[in-house]
Amino acid sequence: MIGRKLVERLAKDGGMEELLLHDVVPPQAPAGARVKVRAVTSDLSTPGEAEKLVNARPDLIFHLAAIVSGEAEADFEKGYRINLDGTQRLFEAIRKVGEGYQPRVVFTSSIAVFGAPFPEAIDDQFLNAPLTSYGTQKAIGELLLSDYSRRGFFDGIGLRLPTICVRPGKPNRAASGFFSGIIREPLAGHEALLPVPRSVRHWFASPRAAIGFLLHAARLDTARLGARRNLSMPGISATVGEQIESLRKVAGDQAVRLIREEPDATIMRIVEGWPRNFAPRRALELGFRADSSFEEIIRIHIEDELGPRRA
Amino acid sequence: MIGRKLVERLAKDGGMEELLLHDVVPPQAPAGARVKVRAVTSDLSTPGEAEKLVNARPDLIFHLAAIVSGEAEADFEKGYRINLDGTQRLFEAIRKVGEGYQPRVVFTSSIAVFGAPFPEAIDDQFLNAPLTSYGTQKAIGELLLSDYSRRGFFDGIGLRLPTICVRPGKPNRAASGFFSGIIREPLAGHEALLPVPRSVRHWFASPRAAIGFLLHAARLDTARLGARRNLSMPGISATVGEQIESLRKVAGDQAVRLIREEPDATIMRIVEGWPRNFAPRRALELGFRADSSFEEIIRIHIEDELGPRRA
Repeated sequence: MIGRKLVERLAKDGGMEELLLHDVVPPQAPAGARVKVRAVTSDLSTPGEAEKLVNARPDLIFHLAAIVSGEAEADFEKGYRINLDGTQRLFEAIRKVGEGYQPRVVFTSSIAVFGAPFPEAIDDQFLNAPLTSYGTQKAIGELLLSDYSRRGFFDGIGLRLPTICVRPGKPNRAASGFFSGIIREPLAGHEALLPVPRSVRHWFASPRAAIGFLLHAARLDTARLGARRNLSMPGISATVGEQIESLRKVAGDQAVRLIREEPDATIMRIVEGWPRNFAPRRALELGFRADSSFEEIIRIHIEDELGPRRA
Repeated sequence: MIGRKLVERLAKDGGMEELLLHDVVPPQAPAGARVKVRAVTSDLSTPGEAEKLVNARPDLIFHLAAIVSGEAEADFEKGYRINLDGTQRLFEAIRKVGEGYQPRVVFTSSIAVFGAPFPEAIDDQFLNAPLTSYGTQKAIGELLLSDYSRRGFFDGIGLRLPTICVRPGKPNRAASGFFSGIIREPLAGHEALLPVPRSVRHWFASPRAAIGFLLHAARLDTARLGARRNLSMPGISATVGEQIESLRKVAGDQAVRLIREEPDATIMRIVEGWPRNFAPRRALELGFRADSSFEEIIRIHIEDELGPRRA
């Protein structure tokens, strides 16, 4: 989803020779692109595929691919194969080009690299102690990104994205899906299930803010990063209760009434291990900017996804 | 070296059915063993070798193997192959046994998982931001150890050993070699090179303390660890100047005169990124015990390595 929105934005902005899209399912070319677009479908974890992609020596690589948290937890081998082996193969393919090739690599990590117990707000020196296989795979990707960058094989930057909210489209298998569902579904007039108590606090960014992070990372002077190439992105810390009150302000009681509480112990156990709040000082100093409130996050969803229908 | 000392200790203590030794070079069977000893020579990073080792379903596995820091920095591919792929293959082989097999795995990590800038003393919540490929490989091993333990594939514990000092025998390719060399060589009447200024501070444990850590980790109730399976071990924080003054107290001026300063920019650059001091509260609470002073570290070396010759 972030990939699709990023591609739409890059295609619209132009300013590049070619946009090479890659996914394990056929990537959708953006409508009205102002640049040449080429789409490749393959499994990055298959030997040789990463080399083919890197053959064209792109100057800028966004590596967003991932099996989501719920699926990586349900299928141990698949999670490691796609999230870890796939990333390693891409990094190795870039390294092996040699000849001074040193692209900018923007890697999307996740706040799932952190695990409870947490301080009040997670700062830039807090340890990565993930409590999911997904978080482990992302944390390893971060370490590889830093080492490959330090050795000069590429110029990497890793972004720990907050949970993206409101995620458009259909629910995916991410355990975090309900954080978007309880906003998106009621706004569309559908019922949404809430599997956790309203006291659960979490860390959010809109898709629009996330695209902003990625574009900023692509342009940033990485000399300012030093050896620590991975950054926790700014976001909005809100409880589920605060999410719901924001929904009420934007869309009224009839929307809120569509949220049905249906506790799910498995999701609760996963979510309990997730971060609630951050003090992302480095990212703010480097110019990354978050949404201003959870209400704004909802309004962005309405503008960007529901705009025409509600106009 | 730690492996050899550990094996000698285990063979002497007895209390197990069989001791299976593995190394990439023929492992030396301990003299006067009170248990059956079997030695296997193979490359753990070669497909299939880890499976053979795990076939006997050992209850307790010490995984100490590693390309040292200097070599992992000099040979990128070899470092990743041995330190990362080798560890991953071992963990995978254990997982694939299945049938409820869940051995205790004691993994030696390193303080090289940490990278500057540091706080005054590194606590148990400080991030892993290694500045060497070796440190990166160890940090990834730690993450895998925690995830495989959380998933119940084995019962792992990772120990971030301080720099072992005084390391007996010949210098190896570790960039940290001089920390031992400036004590060991003068005590043997030989000249030692000092490649860094006396103000450099570092974190030490004797081989005897390190063996104590490993044996304690093998017996520890891992339920006390929670999900964070990796621990910074206690140690002694000392500057090179303090090391030298301890040597003077133990062995006099004539020993100290054998230390020759020969600055080495490469070693200095690596060492600058290394930790200087720790607050290893969790390990202390869990009963891990360090040496009492750097002088004691020197006396242990004399007792354990030079004893008969000096008697």
